[in-house]
Amino acid sequence: MVQERESVQALPKKSENFSEWYTQVALRAELADYTPVRGSMAIRPYGFAIWEGIQAWLDRRFKETGHVTAYFPLLIPESFLKREAEHVQGFAPQVAWVTHGGQEELSERLAVRPTSEAIILPMYAKWIQSYRDLPVLLLQWNSVVRWEKATRLFLRTAEFLWHEGHTAHRTMEDADAECRLILGIYRELIEDVLAIPVLVGVKPPSERFAGADNTYTLEALMPDGQAIQAGTSHFLGQNFAKAFDVKFLDQDNQEKYIWSTSWAVTTRLIGSLIMAHGDDKGLVLPPRIAPFQVVIVPILGRDDAKVLPAAKALAARLSSRFRVKLDDRDAYTAGWKFNEWEMRGAPVRLEIGPRDVANHQVVLSRRTGRSKETLSLDGLEDTVGRILDEIQAELFERGKSYRDEHITQAGTLDELVAAIDRVKGFVKVGWCEMQSCEDTIRERTGASPRLIPLDEEASGKCVVCGMPAKVRVYYARAY
Amino acid sequence: MVQERESVQALPKKSENFSEWYTQVALRAELADYTPVRGSMAIRPYGFAIWEGIQAWLDRRFKETGHVTAYFPLLIPESFLKREAEHVQGFAPQVAWVTHGGQEELSERLAVRPTSEAIILPMYAKWIQSYRDLPVLLLQWNSVVRWEKATRLFLRTAEFLWHEGHTAHRTMEDADAECRLILGIYRELIEDVLAIPVLVGVKPPSERFAGADNTYTLEALMPDGQAIQAGTSHFLGQNFAKAFDVKFLDQDNQEKYIWSTSWAVTTRLIGSLIMAHGDDKGLVLPPRIAPFQVVIVPILGRDDAKVLPAAKALAARLSSRFRVKLDDRDAYTAGWKFNEWEMRGAPVRLEIGPRDVANHQVVLSRRTGRSKETLSLDGLEDTVGRILDEIQAELFERGKSYRDEHITQAGTLDELVAAIDRVKGFVKVGWCEMQSCEDTIRERTGASPRLIPLDEEASGKCVVCGMPAKVRVYYARAY
Repeated sequence: MVQERESVQALPKKSENFSEWYTQVALRAELADYTPVRGSMAIRPYGFAIWEGIQAWLDRRFKETGHVTAYFPLLIPESFLKREAEHVQGFAPQVAWVTHGGQEELSERLAVRPTSEAIILPMYAKWIQSYRDLPVLLLQWNSVVRWEKATRLFLRTAEFLWHEGHTAHRTMEDADAECRLILGIYRELIEDVLAIPVLVGVKPPSERFAGADNTYTLEALMPDGQAIQAGTSHFLGQNFAKAFDVKFLDQDNQEKYIWSTSWAVTTRLIGSLIMAHGDDKGLVLPPRIAPFQVVIVPILGRDDAKVLPAAKALAARLSSRFRVKLDDRDAYTAGWKFNEWEMRGAPVRLEIGPRDVANHQVVLSRRTGRSKETLSLDGLEDTVGRILDEIQAELFERGKSYRDEHITQAGTLDELVAAIDRVKGFVKVGWCEMQSCEDTIRERTGASPRLIPLDEEASGKCVVCGMPAKVRVYYARAY
Repeated sequence: MVQERESVQALPKKSENFSEWYTQVALRAELADYTPVRGSMAIRPYGFAIWEGIQAWLDRRFKETGHVTAYFPLLIPESFLKREAEHVQGFAPQVAWVTHGGQEELSERLAVRPTSEAIILPMYAKWIQSYRDLPVLLLQWNSVVRWEKATRLFLRTAEFLWHEGHTAHRTMEDADAECRLILGIYRELIEDVLAIPVLVGVKPPSERFAGADNTYTLEALMPDGQAIQAGTSHFLGQNFAKAFDVKFLDQDNQEKYIWSTSWAVTTRLIGSLIMAHGDDKGLVLPPRIAPFQVVIVPILGRDDAKVLPAAKALAARLSSRFRVKLDDRDAYTAGWKFNEWEMRGAPVRLEIGPRDVANHQVVLSRRTGRSKETLSLDGLEDTVGRILDEIQAELFERGKSYRDEHITQAGTLDELVAAIDRVKGFVKVGWCEMQSCEDTIRERTGASPRLIPLDEEASGKCVVCGMPAKVRVYYARAY
């Protein structure tokens, strides 16, 4: 059992070196790895299985709400990217440019898509003629490239996976309702499936998507007190419609520009998952997203002829209700496997040895708990189902308590500076909506305005200038 | 009903102008469209739904056979692409090169992946140490870019979607068995789901994947007498293992190179589907892949209050067993809808009007047949299920008869030239395995060697030089 001790010792403590702990968990749980390509990572099968879970859940919800999937070109001519002025300003510094095809130099550079408004909207101009063609509710699953020099696995990479929704609507109200519908679906995914509590709101103008009139956002708090943007839904107004001339003949026989939206969540969510739930033993996965909810480890030895068939029967039985992994590799000890599945965050482990077979029982360990439970095989499905639900709820509640304890309020700039430094987390302030006041806060705190909540009224004064506050803003240092 | 006649007239006849017919069906069934990006197409939602069907079917089969999904970087440094000499020779002329990131010129060019051996094998070198780590059975779903000037929707585009499998094995036999396993899965997909008969075999050396020791292939015959490669599975030997130094410690304590494979099918399959089954009214989709197997068109008019609820109830009822579309749009006539769903290839259409409601019946039309059938609502699921099975079988049998009628044999070069020109399709010949004889055939016929069958013995003489034939080869002109 030497391996066990080495493995545990080598992982830094989450509370002592959060950043290194994070990287080690991502690598050693085999979620991702560095590659020879600067800024790009490989997503390993176990990490990708989490992404497949997110995809499957979202795909179902998107289809239920009338969305369809399509695919648009990876390479976008520079002239198209330039059509929407703010958009190109925002993205040009991050674009990877294709300049040669085979031996030939291209007459126009092609952007490896950083996002696809500039290629999708021109197609909408072809496809949309009448109000009868609206709404268009479409998305694609793909990867995008935004040039980065540093690599933080999942959190900051030159290439990442996402879906990007792009919808076209007849009216402003329809487009805004779509943004809010998607915001709700994202919230459900992040809170109910990934067990990460989020605040929802809109971004101040400085933090909006380049070219958007309004950006809805979901913000989570990580255990180091830093916020992370977990998803966004952009109300693009008619900006892209005008830039790409996307018009339709309305019921009143008038030609009008469409209203458009775009929205996304990315593989960054997997980084949030690691940070939010992991501990000093490694990854902790919420049951609803875990690739394996139940890992069965047979205790092998002299009685393999009894234990192995019992373990297989148990796996077969539980597979009809749960995602089950039977780890019957004979080259590894049971102790080694326990450590490995703790590192990989499987929510429930079942051990079955000779005595368990004889006694018609199994031994269950929760990834989130210390003591083992001996359970009868009778009605085991229901017991395991209940325990998985408890783990799911426990992870969410733990995150929510932490988050709620780290939301403070500041009436003055000094209080804000102190809260950002000492309490960390989110600090609520009043804001007059002047850019200069926001700039002052950024300079003094290193924090950024994360969101303006949808459901809180402004009150009091701007934390910087003392003028009446128009809105309330949550500040935090952020990923 | 003016629309109807125009719509039918505007589609060229398949038998008269196959190429233009093909393009018009792809566009007007809304499978794909041209984009402002040279050589790149957009896959529209209806076309993408077919791809989703292919993905879902393959994903299930791949998982059942122990494969896992992952993701590797889009951009591959030039030095990595150059490591395997034949590989870079084969792909370099087709590569799109990224030379700038943001404002900065890169010190090394990055290839937009044309295929991913050169980035996956270096990761295998990191991940594989021991025979216990083998096999690695991994794939990714993505797009690749291979520079093309011309665009033929689905058939020839600079960017296309595919999956690429990349597996690593302990022995040559294991790697070859993997190639054959995948070949079998592809055959099942293409014949049983897409209803397109294929010949299976291996490519002659000149047609192998760049860097492979052996390429297994599936070849289909299109109704214009041209062959199309429908999928490939490559035995890469130890070529890539040596180029990227992928070694493992075997059970006998010796360090050895892994044996690797790679394999793929692409969105080109959708092009084959259009060509194989379509007719002068448009697309014809085999039921097992059709996004909508059953389209219900209510006959609206004075009795909408009776007809619409009945149509909805029917849709709900059939949805538990089939993929059903209720087309209750009120802006279009029933006749317009009939034409549209014929263009879009829905296998079965159900009409329901006031008299049908009264008589507890529906009127069924097969996309492949002329006469309508009036069916009782009692047991309708079973009737529809049986009819869908019949359509599936009919499409496959029709293709198989055509294909079998277009396989001829040639004993001399003159016979071969004549057969390629007059009969079209596949022509079987004996071959001595000399490259010069193959070159002669290519020059004289414009045909290429499509495959060497797995299950046919060579006999007789080489069709060119008259030396004893070592293998039998199927020649055809090809896409």
